[in-house]
Amino acid sequence: MTAYDDLMAFQRQTEALAQVSGRLGWDQEVMMPEGAAAQRAEEMAALETVLHARRSDPRIGEWLDDCVTMDETGHANLRLVRRQHERAIRVPARLAAELARVTSLAQGIWARARADEDVAAFLPVLGDVVRLRREEGAALAQGGDPYDALLHDYEPGTTSDDLAAMFARLRPRLVALREKALAAPPAPRLTGSFPEAGQLALAHEVARAFGYDFERGRLDKSVHPFTAGSGDDVRITTRTDEADPFNCLYSTIHEVGHALYEQGIDGAHLLTPVGQGASMGVHESQSRICENQIGRSRAFTGWIYGRMRDIFGDFGIASENDFFRAVNRVARGHIRTEADEVQYNLHILLRFDLEQALMRGDLATGDLEAAWNDRFLADFGLAVDRPSHGMLQDVHWSAGLFGYFPTYSLGNVYAGCLHAALCRDLPALDADLARGDPGAAIRWLHAKVHRYGSLHDPLATITRAIGGEPGEGPLLDYLEAKFG
Amino acid sequence: MTAYDDLMAFQRQTEALAQVSGRLGWDQEVMMPEGAAAQRAEEMAALETVLHARRSDPRIGEWLDDCVTMDETGHANLRLVRRQHERAIRVPARLAAELARVTSLAQGIWARARADEDVAAFLPVLGDVVRLRREEGAALAQGGDPYDALLHDYEPGTTSDDLAAMFARLRPRLVALREKALAAPPAPRLTGSFPEAGQLALAHEVARAFGYDFERGRLDKSVHPFTAGSGDDVRITTRTDEADPFNCLYSTIHEVGHALYEQGIDGAHLLTPVGQGASMGVHESQSRICENQIGRSRAFTGWIYGRMRDIFGDFGIASENDFFRAVNRVARGHIRTEADEVQYNLHILLRFDLEQALMRGDLATGDLEAAWNDRFLADFGLAVDRPSHGMLQDVHWSAGLFGYFPTYSLGNVYAGCLHAALCRDLPALDADLARGDPGAAIRWLHAKVHRYGSLHDPLATITRAIGGEPGEGPLLDYLEAKFG
Repeated sequence: MTAYDDLMAFQRQTEALAQVSGRLGWDQEVMMPEGAAAQRAEEMAALETVLHARRSDPRIGEWLDDCVTMDETGHANLRLVRRQHERAIRVPARLAAELARVTSLAQGIWARARADEDVAAFLPVLGDVVRLRREEGAALAQGGDPYDALLHDYEPGTTSDDLAAMFARLRPRLVALREKALAAPPAPRLTGSFPEAGQLALAHEVARAFGYDFERGRLDKSVHPFTAGSGDDVRITTRTDEADPFNCLYSTIHEVGHALYEQGIDGAHLLTPVGQGASMGVHESQSRICENQIGRSRAFTGWIYGRMRDIFGDFGIASENDFFRAVNRVARGHIRTEADEVQYNLHILLRFDLEQALMRGDLATGDLEAAWNDRFLADFGLAVDRPSHGMLQDVHWSAGLFGYFPTYSLGNVYAGCLHAALCRDLPALDADLARGDPGAAIRWLHAKVHRYGSLHDPLATITRAIGGEPGEGPLLDYLEAKFG
Repeated sequence: MTAYDDLMAFQRQTEALAQVSGRLGWDQEVMMPEGAAAQRAEEMAALETVLHARRSDPRIGEWLDDCVTMDETGHANLRLVRRQHERAIRVPARLAAELARVTSLAQGIWARARADEDVAAFLPVLGDVVRLRREEGAALAQGGDPYDALLHDYEPGTTSDDLAAMFARLRPRLVALREKALAAPPAPRLTGSFPEAGQLALAHEVARAFGYDFERGRLDKSVHPFTAGSGDDVRITTRTDEADPFNCLYSTIHEVGHALYEQGIDGAHLLTPVGQGASMGVHESQSRICENQIGRSRAFTGWIYGRMRDIFGDFGIASENDFFRAVNRVARGHIRTEADEVQYNLHILLRFDLEQALMRGDLATGDLEAAWNDRFLADFGLAVDRPSHGMLQDVHWSAGLFGYFPTYSLGNVYAGCLHAALCRDLPALDADLARGDPGAAIRWLHAKVHRYGSLHDPLATITRAIGGEPGEGPLLDYLEAKFG
């Protein structure tokens, strides 16, 4: 056994335990009885204590020092282990366990506060989460910027300055496009009711069409759709609204995009550091290109229109063109997850600025609601009428995911770049999609992105896939062509 | 902090991780996609490695040495920690992880082999499980009897000699009773079909009537019904057969009996060694008294008859008396879990003898099928017509649970004792049950058994509850009165 073999045997067990933690997270959102919340917080804290102890184990430093010349996979694994180890030794074990316990509890408290429209009920635990994550950010940053240190967990190699500069370039063209789209004649709307069973049947059919492997995953319902797990157990969730079938359909395609990435990583990397997505931004590029550039395209919505008429009968839309316009309707609204492609990134910019202020201590949690509502009115020309339409709409901050939101917009930018390359390489793409067959597009994504997992840095992953440096241009060009 | 406080803080995390392992076991049977089996085995092995390391941690020995005068709960926790620690240090870490990995894999292989009626497909992994458990039994026994060492995990304080002597006293009266019951005019049978939705609605209603707390648990379907978890997350499963509504109904009541025990333990013991059932035999006494002495009583079946006619309409049974006879029908059959109360223990006696022979090396796995079939013909007067009616019918051996089966009969014996005491203390029991209300009986079990958890030894738990020494007499008297 070489030092590398020893390290990887140890790491394989750590990755397996991290998978267990992910499975528990899925269970908490999908299966756990409500009365188990406090006990579950103890269980998550115990597991996090184990994971933290393993990731900060001093033997890792020794093994890393003793590893000799490696192949590309070996180098990548060492890079990722080193990053995880350096992170772990900076965070006290007590803090890691406390974060796991408090964020597990906070998600249930947030869900009740949102249902009750009760900001005050959420603020104390939000205060705890913010305090603990700031403490963690400071420990990780070692004098540097605490928000950048947290962002680094989700998007290694990208700083908040990089993102702020990119967002500054995005904003004016998005705002101009939004004004233009809102001034256009309103798109038609679907009428009638869409029974849940039909929505779920369509969700399963579309997931299969995209290539989601149900033998190595499952599709359930949850309040907030998400994907959990790597390798051979990658689960997705969706939600249904009988008045709005697009909620279920497009959240399913979105999560399928994430899941295809995890299911598509070369099996040789299973339970190794390389065996998972390169970053949250790269991950989001996979979900977004499936949901938007493919799933909301004129060609694919034509096929969806036919399937939905087969399942639901007449729903007041007379043609494929009207259906395409209904799917891509631009309208004023409060909810990020229901936003159209044009306004979506403006939601992210709002959260990005507010969460930086929270993490840097420039905004107190008690002032968050007012700050949110003021900014929302300024950015969207719309007053927030209730907390569930404002600062209580998203689960992320209760889960402690500060630094996560901006990767959504980065993912949209990457999806724009990948889509431009995909159109260049696959001239028959629209003909395929019009038949309800995204297979060739998914095979392209698999060959260019999925199979590598974290073999390359996030930026290198995209650069190699598109054959050049990524930027926001292709996304904006695509949006202006579609909505302008 | 005293040594006891340190020990219990450590132990609390260990118990939380054991709960995580139980939750994964539930997930494997109820939710896991089939293609995840190999990855799950790695995850279970990693978690078992962590648990084993914690349970064999040398600090536990030091803390145990340093603990000073304690109250009753403290003494009980120390007794249980010491037992777990002494067990762990005898089993090599490699063996513990290998057992977790192999038994996780073997359950999927068994399920497929049973579906395919293919003993040969199961034998290689069964051989591995037997070899590993024999190795573990030998390590635990340190020169003593390996089967007794394994039995000790499930029923501390009871030996295979104790059980063999009790079973020798049970057998002749059960055999005589079986002959008498089989010679009587056959009981009526239900006709028609029983839609799954109605069965599950009744299962939920009955579970609530027994006091199962759905806020701290959930009811799902699985191939083999079971209960998983302690404290505030105690989940039960059932199964349905549209031709036989009793399968779902009585497996639900059985698992509810287990779950009431775990849900009823004093909350002060949560995530401590005392905070779970005293033994498998005591556990089974709780499931069996709910399922049989209460659930299959003349009084309670009278109420069930009315509810079933409300839900399913006419099913060819003309009176409460006929329904009672149909529920308690004694007939020849191959399947343990479908056996009547008279023949059930004869199934256990068969498995008890065969698994002792396997663990002591007197029977090779390759000879198991023939040994099973010969013994079954001799004991039940019936040839085994297919492996799923014979040695492939139960999950236990694939899960490595050698030493577990006899606790089922011990549980029946304990249930007989508890029932005699319950009837003595609650003169209105039948009147309550005739109204579909087992509440007073459950409160009696809670006061006498549930709330204590593992505060007392298994035998002491039963002795205190009934006010005397338990024995097989009350069970046999009850069975002869009911079936004789």
